[in-house]
Amino acid sequence: MEFFIENARWIASIIAIGGLVFAFRQRAWVMQQDPGNETMQRIAAAVQKGAAAFLRREYIYVALFVVLVSALLLGLSSVPDFNLSPWTVVAFVSGALASGLAGFFGMQIAVRANSRTTQAASQSLDGGLRVAFASGSVMGTTVVSLALLGIGLLIVVLSGIKDNPQEMAGALTGFGFGGTAIAIFARVGGGIFTKAADVGADLVGKTEAGIPEDDPRNPAVIADNVGDNVGDVAGMGSDLFESYASSIIAAISLAVLSGGVAAGGAAALGIGIPAEKTGAAQAYPLLIAALGLIVSIGCTFLVRAQEGATQGQLLGSLRRGVYSASAIIALLMIVVALLLDLGIGVAIAAIAGLVAGAGIGLSTEYFTSDTYRPTRYLAESSEGGPAIVIIQGIALGMLSVVLPALIVIAATLVAYASVGLYGIAIAAVGMLSTLSITLATDAYGPVADNAGGIAEMSHMGKEVRERTDALDSLGNTTAAVGKGFAIGSALMTALALIAAFVSVTGIQRIDILDPRLITGFVLGGMLPLLFSAQTMTAVGKAARGVVVEVRRQFKEIPGLMEGKADPDYARCVAISTDSAIRQMILPGALAVAIPVLLILGARLARGTDFERFLGAETVVGMLIGSLLVAFMVAVLMANAGGAWDNAKKYIERGNLGGKGSDAHKAAVVGDTVGDPFKDTSGPSLNILLKLLAIVSLVMAPLLR
Amino acid sequence: MEFFIENARWIASIIAIGGLVFAFRQRAWVMQQDPGNETMQRIAAAVQKGAAAFLRREYIYVALFVVLVSALLLGLSSVPDFNLSPWTVVAFVSGALASGLAGFFGMQIAVRANSRTTQAASQSLDGGLRVAFASGSVMGTTVVSLALLGIGLLIVVLSGIKDNPQEMAGALTGFGFGGTAIAIFARVGGGIFTKAADVGADLVGKTEAGIPEDDPRNPAVIADNVGDNVGDVAGMGSDLFESYASSIIAAISLAVLSGGVAAGGAAALGIGIPAEKTGAAQAYPLLIAALGLIVSIGCTFLVRAQEGATQGQLLGSLRRGVYSASAIIALLMIVVALLLDLGIGVAIAAIAGLVAGAGIGLSTEYFTSDTYRPTRYLAESSEGGPAIVIIQGIALGMLSVVLPALIVIAATLVAYASVGLYGIAIAAVGMLSTLSITLATDAYGPVADNAGGIAEMSHMGKEVRERTDALDSLGNTTAAVGKGFAIGSALMTALALIAAFVSVTGIQRIDILDPRLITGFVLGGMLPLLFSAQTMTAVGKAARGVVVEVRRQFKEIPGLMEGKADPDYARCVAISTDSAIRQMILPGALAVAIPVLLILGARLARGTDFERFLGAETVVGMLIGSLLVAFMVAVLMANAGGAWDNAKKYIERGNLGGKGSDAHKAAVVGDTVGDPFKDTSGPSLNILLKLLAIVSLVMAPLLR
Repeated sequence: MEFFIENARWIASIIAIGGLVFAFRQRAWVMQQDPGNETMQRIAAAVQKGAAAFLRREYIYVALFVVLVSALLLGLSSVPDFNLSPWTVVAFVSGALASGLAGFFGMQIAVRANSRTTQAASQSLDGGLRVAFASGSVMGTTVVSLALLGIGLLIVVLSGIKDNPQEMAGALTGFGFGGTAIAIFARVGGGIFTKAADVGADLVGKTEAGIPEDDPRNPAVIADNVGDNVGDVAGMGSDLFESYASSIIAAISLAVLSGGVAAGGAAALGIGIPAEKTGAAQAYPLLIAALGLIVSIGCTFLVRAQEGATQGQLLGSLRRGVYSASAIIALLMIVVALLLDLGIGVAIAAIAGLVAGAGIGLSTEYFTSDTYRPTRYLAESSEGGPAIVIIQGIALGMLSVVLPALIVIAATLVAYASVGLYGIAIAAVGMLSTLSITLATDAYGPVADNAGGIAEMSHMGKEVRERTDALDSLGNTTAAVGKGFAIGSALMTALALIAAFVSVTGIQRIDILDPRLITGFVLGGMLPLLFSAQTMTAVGKAARGVVVEVRRQFKEIPGLMEGKADPDYARCVAISTDSAIRQMILPGALAVAIPVLLILGARLARGTDFERFLGAETVVGMLIGSLLVAFMVAVLMANAGGAWDNAKKYIERGNLGGKGSDAHKAAVVGDTVGDPFKDTSGPSLNILLKLLAIVSLVMAPLLR
Repeated sequence: MEFFIENARWIASIIAIGGLVFAFRQRAWVMQQDPGNETMQRIAAAVQKGAAAFLRREYIYVALFVVLVSALLLGLSSVPDFNLSPWTVVAFVSGALASGLAGFFGMQIAVRANSRTTQAASQSLDGGLRVAFASGSVMGTTVVSLALLGIGLLIVVLSGIKDNPQEMAGALTGFGFGGTAIAIFARVGGGIFTKAADVGADLVGKTEAGIPEDDPRNPAVIADNVGDNVGDVAGMGSDLFESYASSIIAAISLAVLSGGVAAGGAAALGIGIPAEKTGAAQAYPLLIAALGLIVSIGCTFLVRAQEGATQGQLLGSLRRGVYSASAIIALLMIVVALLLDLGIGVAIAAIAGLVAGAGIGLSTEYFTSDTYRPTRYLAESSEGGPAIVIIQGIALGMLSVVLPALIVIAATLVAYASVGLYGIAIAAVGMLSTLSITLATDAYGPVADNAGGIAEMSHMGKEVRERTDALDSLGNTTAAVGKGFAIGSALMTALALIAAFVSVTGIQRIDILDPRLITGFVLGGMLPLLFSAQTMTAVGKAARGVVVEVRRQFKEIPGLMEGKADPDYARCVAISTDSAIRQMILPGALAVAIPVLLILGARLARGTDFERFLGAETVVGMLIGSLLVAFMVAVLMANAGGAWDNAKKYIERGNLGGKGSDAHKAAVVGDTVGDPFKDTSGPSLNILLKLLAIVSLVMAPLLR
C-alpha cells in the first residue's frame, strides 16, 4: 500500500510513456497503409498543407498569448502576499505545450489517415473502419498519455517543494490552465474555421452553382476538409486533454487541501478525506487514470479483432470495446480503493462518474439519432417549412437538457454522499478514466468524413462512396455521443475545480443572498451567452468572406465550372484561416481576462469599502452561474445541431419525399443553423466553463 | 407620520377605487366612439365572440385548478405544525379572482376598441391613436387598481389576525399566488392560441393560397385577431398584475419579518429595516404604489392633450407621458421616505428600480428597433438566406442579454447597499410604480394591430390601412419595450420573493457547495428549458391543426377562394381554442406542482436520512437557478423575436430588395421563428420564474 502511495506519480508516468509507445506503433501501422492513387494523394496533401498552415498560424498567436500570461503570472507570483507560486508558471507552460502537442499529433495522423481510409474502403468497409479507428486511437492515446505524463512528471519535480503541499497543489493547477488556454483558442479558432468553410462552401456550391457536396470544382472544398481536422480533431483533442488533466488535478488538490487542515477540519470543510489519508487520496486519481489507459488500450485491440462485420455489428463491437473497458475499470476502481485503504465510498464516487458519462452518451444518442422518436419527429416537422424545423429543433434541444441534468445531479449527489467534495472530483476522474478509447471512437468520425470527401473528389466508384458514407454515418453517432460526454465531463470537472476554489479561499459558508454572490451569478450566467453570440457572429462573418471568394473564383477563373481549370483552393484556406484566427482572439482573451480581472479586483477591494460589492463570493457566484448556463446552452446546441443534421440525412435517405423535396430544403436550413451550434459555439462553451474555473483556481491563492 | 402608517391600507384602497372609477369613465368614452360600418361591426363581433369563448373555456379550467389548489392549501393548513394560515386560501382565491377580472376587463375593452380605432383612424391618425391608447389605459388602470384594492382590503381584513404578523405576511402571499396561477394559464394558453392561429394563417394563406395577410378569405384570420386579444392583452394583463401585486407583497412581508425578530436581529438577517420601523416599512410600498397610480393617471391626460401631431411627435409625447410620471413619482418616493422617517436609502432603492426599468426598456429598443445597428445588421444578414438570419438573430438575442443583466446587477447592488434585502423588494415596487401608464402604452399595441386587420377585411381605403399600419408600427416599439420591462420587473420581483423565502425559512447562511443547493441550481436551471420546449412544441402542434383545417376549408367550401362564399371562421377559433387549452394544462400544472412537491418532500425528509439530499436549500437553489436561466432565455427570446419582426418590416419598407426578394423570404422565416419566441415561450418564462418563487414563499412556513 505504502509503495503505491509513494510511487503513484512514477507509475502514472511510466504507464503514460507506455501509452505513447503504443500510439507511436499505431501511427506506424496507419502510415504503412496504401495512401491511394495520385489524385487521392494530391488532395490529401492539399488538406495536410492547409491544416498545417492553419495550426502554425494559430500556434503563433497562442504562443504569444502563453508568453503574455506567463509574464502576468510571474509578475503576480513576485508580489509577496499574493501566495502565487512561481512554479505555477512552469506548470502553465508545460500544460500549454502538452496540450498543443496532443492537438498537433492527433491532427497530424488524422490528415494522413484520410486518403488511407479511402483506399482501404475501396477494398472493404471493414478495412476502412480499421484504418480510421486506428488513427482515432492514436489521438485518444496521445491525449491521455501526454496529460498523465505531464502531471506525473510535474509532481515528481514539485516534490522538491513538497514541504508546502498547498503550494504544490496551487502550482499543479497551472498545468490545467496551460491546457485550457490552448484549448479555448483551438476550439474557437478551429470551430470558426470549420464552419465558415462548410457553410461558405454549401451556400455558394450547393445553392448557387448547383454542384454537389465535396465537388472538386468548389474552391472551398479543401478548406471544408481542412476544417474537419483543425476543428473536430485538434479542437476536440485539446478540449478533452484539458478536462482529463483538470479533473485529476482537482482531485489531487482537494486531497492536498484536506491534509492542510487539522484533523477533523477537512470534514468541516466537507472535502470528505480525513487528514491521515491525504497521501492515498492523492494517489487514487493517478492510479485510476493510469489503469484506465492500460484497460482502454487493451480494449482497443478487442475492437480491432472483429473482421468482416456489417456496419451494425461494427458499431456493436465498438460499443462492446467501450463498455468492456468501463466494466473492467469499474472493478479496478474498487480494487485500488481497497488497496489504498480509502474505503469503498471512493470507488462508488468514481463509478458514479463512469455511469453518468455512459448515461449522458445514451441520452445524447436518443435525442440525435434518427432511429428514435425525437429526430424522426423533427424530420416530419420539416414538412411545415424551415421555420417549423427551427422551432422544433430548438424545442428538442431544450428538452434534451433535462436528462443529462438529472444524470449529473444524481452522480453529484451519490459522489458527495460517498466522500464529500473529493467525491465530486473523483467522479469526474471516473467519467474520464476510459477517455483513451472513447476519444478514439470520436476522433475517428472526421477521418471517415474526410475519406468520403476524398472519394468524391478523386472520382472513386459509387460503392466506395457508399462505404465511406456508411463510415461517416457511424461517425456521426459516435461524434454526437462524444459531444455529450465532453459536456458532461466538463461540468463534473468544473464542479470539482469550483470545490477546490472554495476550499482554497475558505468561503465555504456564505450568505445565499449576499449581493456579491447574486452579482456573480448573473455575471456568470451572462458570459456563455456573450461568448456564444461572438462565436456565432464570427462564423457568419467568416462564412461570408468565403462566399465572396468562391463567387469571385467562379466568375474570374475561366473553365472552372466545366471542370477544365483548377480552383485556387489555397486562397479559400488562407481566407478561412485569417478570419478564424482574427475572430478567435476576442472571445478567447475575454474568457481568460474576466476571471483574472475579477480576482485582482476582489483582492484590491479587500479592506476597502468596495469589499461589500466584490470578493471571492463574486467569483464563486460567477463560476456557478456560468457553469449552469454554459452546460445548458452547450447541451441544447450540441443536440439540436446533431438532430438537425440527422433529420436532414434521414430525409436524404428517401424519407418524407427525399432529396430535393420541400421538406429536404427546410431540413437543410435546420442543418446549416445547426452547424455553428454543434461545432463552434456549443463545444466552445465546454472549454469556457472549465477555463473560468481553472483560471479562478490558479488565482485563488490571492484570495486566501 | 403615524396617521400615514396606520392608514396606508385605507389610503391605498381608496385611491384604487378612484382608479377603477377613472377606468370606468375611460371605458365609457371609448364605447361612445363610432363603432364603424356594418362590415366592421360584424368582424369586430366575430372577434369578440371568439375571444369571449376562449376566455370562458380557459377560465373554466382555471377555476377548476383554483378549486384544487384551494383544497390542497386548506388541507395543508389543517396540519398543525405546517404553520400554514387558512387565510392563505382566502387570499389565494381573491388574488385569482382579481387577476381573472383584470384580464377579462382588459380584453373586453380591447375587442370593443378595435373597430372604433379603425373608424377613428379613417378620420385621422391622431384620432385612432387616442381611441387605442384610451382602451390601453383602461387596461393599465384596471390591472393596477384591482391589485392595489385587493392587497389593501386584504390587509384590512387580516388586521383581525394582526397579533401574528408572520401569519398575516404568509396569508398575504396567497394573493400573489392566486394572481400567478391565473397568469400562467393566461400567458401560456393565450400565447399558444395567438401564435398557432398566426403561424397557421400565414403558412397556408400567404405561402400556399397566395393571399395577403388579414385577407377575409383566410378562414384563420378571425382566429388570428382573437389571438392578439387573448394572448397579448389578457395574458399580459395577468402577467403584470402578478408582478405588481407580488412586489408589494414581498416588500410588506420583509418589513413584517424584520419586526418578527428581536431588535438587531433584522440587521443580522440582512433585511435592512430596524424592528421599530416595521410599520413604516410596511406602509411605504403601499403609499408609493398608490401615488404611482395617481401620477400615472394624471400623465395619461398629458398624452391625450397632444392634438394633430405626427406619428414621431406622438411617440415623443407618449414617452414624455411615461417619463414625466417617472420623474414625479421619483420625487414623491423621496418625500414619502422622509415623511415616514425611513431615511433616504429607501427612496434610493425605489428610484434604482425605476431607473433600471427605463434602462431595460431602452436596451430592448436598441436591440429590436430597426433604427439601430443590431436589427439593421440582422436585416442585412438575411441576404445570406434563412439559416444565416436564424444564426444571426439568435446571436443578437444572446448579446442583448448582457445589458439588462448588468442593469439588474447595478440596481440590485444599489438597492441592497441602501437598505438590504428590503431594498431589493422596494426596487421592484419602484420599477412597477408607473405600471398603469407603461401598461397603457403596451396594451395599446394589439388594439392597433387588430384595427389594421379590420381595416383590411372591411376593404377600407388605402390611407386608412396606412394609418393603422403606422399605429401598429408604433405599437411594436412600445410592445418590445413593454416586454423588456415585464422581464426586468419579473426578475426583481422574484428576487424579492426569494429574499422573503430565505427570511421565512431562516437558511440565510448556507454552504455554497451543499449538494442540495447544487441539485437545486441544476434542477431550477432545467425548468425554464423544459417549460419552453413544451410551449414551443405546443405552438407547432396547434399551428398544424389550424393548417389542416384551413386547407380543408379551401378545398371543401366552393367559391371561397373567389370571395363568393364565407369561410367558417368559428371552426378555426374553436380548433385553436381546443388545442391551446389542452396544451396549456401540462406546463401550467407542472410549474405549480414542482415547487409544491419539492417543499412537501423537504418537509417530509426532515429528521430522516434524506435530509442531506432535500431541504430548503434545494428550494432556494431551484429558485435561483430558474431565475437565472429563465431571465436570460426570456430576454433572448423576446429580443430575437422582436428584432426578426422588425428586420422583416424593414425589408418590407423597400430596403434590401423589398417584399418578394430572397432577403425578404429569409426574413419571413426569421419572423415566424420569432413568433413563439417573443409571444409564447419568452413571456411565459416571466411568469414561470415568479410562480416558482411565490409558490415557494406560500409554502415556506412548512420549512420554518
